[in-house]
Amino acid sequence: MQRRTFLRHAGAFAAMPLVMPSLSDAWSAAAAAPLRVNGARLNEWLTKFDSIGRTPTGINRVAYSEADLAGRAFTLQLLRDAGLTPRIDTAGNIYARLDGTDRTLAPILIGSHIDSVTDGGNFDGPVGSFGAIEVARTLREQAVRLRHPLDVVIWQNEEGGTTGSKIAVGEITDAELAKVARSGITIRDGIGRIGGDVSRLGEAVKKKGDIACYIELHIEQGGLLEKAGKQIGVVQGIVGLRWFEVTITGFANHAGATPMDQRQDAMLAAAKFTVAVNDAVRAEPGRQVATVGRMVVSPNTTNVIPGQVVLTVDLRDLDQAKIEHFTEIFERLAREIGTATTTTFAFKRLTDSRPAISDPRVMQWVESSATALGLSSQRMPSGAGHDAQEIAHIAPMAMIFIPSVGGISHSPKEFSRAADITNGADVLLNAVIAADARVPDGPS
Amino acid sequence: MQRRTFLRHAGAFAAMPLVMPSLSDAWSAAAAAPLRVNGARLNEWLTKFDSIGRTPTGINRVAYSEADLAGRAFTLQLLRDAGLTPRIDTAGNIYARLDGTDRTLAPILIGSHIDSVTDGGNFDGPVGSFGAIEVARTLREQAVRLRHPLDVVIWQNEEGGTTGSKIAVGEITDAELAKVARSGITIRDGIGRIGGDVSRLGEAVKKKGDIACYIELHIEQGGLLEKAGKQIGVVQGIVGLRWFEVTITGFANHAGATPMDQRQDAMLAAAKFTVAVNDAVRAEPGRQVATVGRMVVSPNTTNVIPGQVVLTVDLRDLDQAKIEHFTEIFERLAREIGTATTTTFAFKRLTDSRPAISDPRVMQWVESSATALGLSSQRMPSGAGHDAQEIAHIAPMAMIFIPSVGGISHSPKEFSRAADITNGADVLLNAVIAADARVPDGPS
Repeated sequence: MQRRTFLRHAGAFAAMPLVMPSLSDAWSAAAAAPLRVNGARLNEWLTKFDSIGRTPTGINRVAYSEADLAGRAFTLQLLRDAGLTPRIDTAGNIYARLDGTDRTLAPILIGSHIDSVTDGGNFDGPVGSFGAIEVARTLREQAVRLRHPLDVVIWQNEEGGTTGSKIAVGEITDAELAKVARSGITIRDGIGRIGGDVSRLGEAVKKKGDIACYIELHIEQGGLLEKAGKQIGVVQGIVGLRWFEVTITGFANHAGATPMDQRQDAMLAAAKFTVAVNDAVRAEPGRQVATVGRMVVSPNTTNVIPGQVVLTVDLRDLDQAKIEHFTEIFERLAREIGTATTTTFAFKRLTDSRPAISDPRVMQWVESSATALGLSSQRMPSGAGHDAQEIAHIAPMAMIFIPSVGGISHSPKEFSRAADITNGADVLLNAVIAADARVPDGPS
Repeated sequence: MQRRTFLRHAGAFAAMPLVMPSLSDAWSAAAAAPLRVNGARLNEWLTKFDSIGRTPTGINRVAYSEADLAGRAFTLQLLRDAGLTPRIDTAGNIYARLDGTDRTLAPILIGSHIDSVTDGGNFDGPVGSFGAIEVARTLREQAVRLRHPLDVVIWQNEEGGTTGSKIAVGEITDAELAKVARSGITIRDGIGRIGGDVSRLGEAVKKKGDIACYIELHIEQGGLLEKAGKQIGVVQGIVGLRWFEVTITGFANHAGATPMDQRQDAMLAAAKFTVAVNDAVRAEPGRQVATVGRMVVSPNTTNVIPGQVVLTVDLRDLDQAKIEHFTEIFERLAREIGTATTTTFAFKRLTDSRPAISDPRVMQWVESSATALGLSSQRMPSGAGHDAQEIAHIAPMAMIFIPSVGGISHSPKEFSRAADITNGADVLLNAVIAADARVPDGPS
């Protein structure tokens, strides 16, 4: 049995006793009567935040833009209002610490991002960011003293390639830093703009052991929870992803003068391939997804049989073996369709990221917290990428999902209900308390 | 039996006898020993012409450009060298007349165009234009006096919408004149640039009866003749054409987070439709063609399920009833695919042109001429549009096709063999002689 430091103080936390009473099973006690965040306050922050970067076509709070800077200023103020002292690391990530009782322990890390896609919504990122701030504020207000330090983090430029969390695990490349972000400046310049220092990025890097565990609250961005009627998603991991660029070469010719049986129609080949890819992933059980999202046709003229089509396939699954399996299937389908249509297919891999698997213990704490709160939950993969996939390289992690209405995200129509947001923050709060009790030395 | 004026003089034609000997069957005599053009000269003109508008990416002799003006100057000189006096009508079309013996008869009209598409070849247009000049020059050199006047015509801006021939039949609209041509100026301004007068376009209009018949020599632009091993195509008509713009609306969503069975994927619907359109036109006998040539995807991003696709369908056949038939099929397929994919299809007609049917007598003269010259031939539709489709509104017409190597056209790789070009001009020459004998009063 370990010494526990789970405490609840009715009032102020200034005069914290240096020696904590040992509770025989504080975690079980907490589970029986779980803490709750101030949901009204959390949702009020989100409502206010909706005005920052709001445009007629959606939220445009893309990384390094004026709206992103305004959003970061708003967030820094929320942290100060919570009684925390925010700091910006050399990568431009925002951190703020709630001290624990044991300074020898690595911090528990919670947070998300506040930047948006182009024409996005107000929930993807802010829910988890503000949820983490609310958790820290609740712990402080309720005078609940953790053993571990609790770090709240706001990762920079999640939507542009999980830049902040990639730097935090030492995985960023020079090529990525040189990329032009949606705001029109390079990531390198963007980091300077948000208060980072690109010449000292090494100082932002964490190693294994630097973080006790990482828990991220996020909206689902799909329709699984809503369809299943569940309140909380316990994320089993972030799916691996493979992006292909497929170039299909036929022969451009006259749409009127060329008989149907003498064509080398790259568009027809692309269409057959798109249908075949869809059929293939649907023909097998599982949650694998594949999407043809982009297609560029040449010459793209009404009366010319297309001579070339370049399309992309986005393939994802939680199991790397399945990604390899469907890669083989897609390449075989391409060969067959190429032969049938007298066209050639060339594959190029644009991106390849392996699945990031959640830590079973952290998942268990999330699940138990939901149960203790009387919330229904289900385990599920995250089809979308998140900062958590980067942190998984160096620390045990899990994610908490709440429902997205209609499964809509990356859209102005993105919406999560206030009650679901509060539920998510409540689960995060209690999962942090559970983690504090069990890591690094608790039973699994 | 009609009085015929088919004559052959050994030498000069200056002192033409006013009274012609009546030949009992001059046409049959011609068929037995057909006249021939100077094929070497014709092909030499084409070789010289290849340097005008030649660029690294193909022939760029688009209407109203500097290269088009240079091409027209070259052509005017060819007409003068043939002993003819060219004139430019108010539409900018070039005409040159070889007088006949009977000034009361309407002219037989032959010709084509010399403008090209962007990055095109040297054969689409010039073969028929120079072939017509060569026919007139041969008749003059051989002192063959026709009854009918023979007009050679070089239509302006065929590739930009058969502008010259449309004006000639009174079918041009103000909207068409206002369109910006490939050379960057409006058609209206272009007409001024090539010596026309847009304020007096009415003077360029012909009525029914103004032209005895029209015969146009052209490259096939498809691969039918080459595949069939035939030397001459006897064109049965220019296919009717219907262009649809189809807007497919689904719902843009996250490519990772949205399960396969919860998608409204406009790209998948577009792909299924493209395959279904192709299957439908191939499932029935006939020469109908349908092409999905253009596709614009929104948002066209690798990791977003497309919310909208706009595509075009180009449908052609010689039989208007078949165009209506396939229109119904396409609309039914769209409804079925829309239901299956939870997307909606909206159709818009961009262009609708009815088939232009060749005159059976004129076709017969072309066919008989080919036979008399010992050339193999086959009847076939023209899948491509031509000035002949406009002239069909007011005069009996037919076209002569010669093979395109590999069926390639509108491409720098467009090529027709010198022997085939000479064959085509020989057929045109003898078809003119046949027409002169038989129209307007000959047996069908």
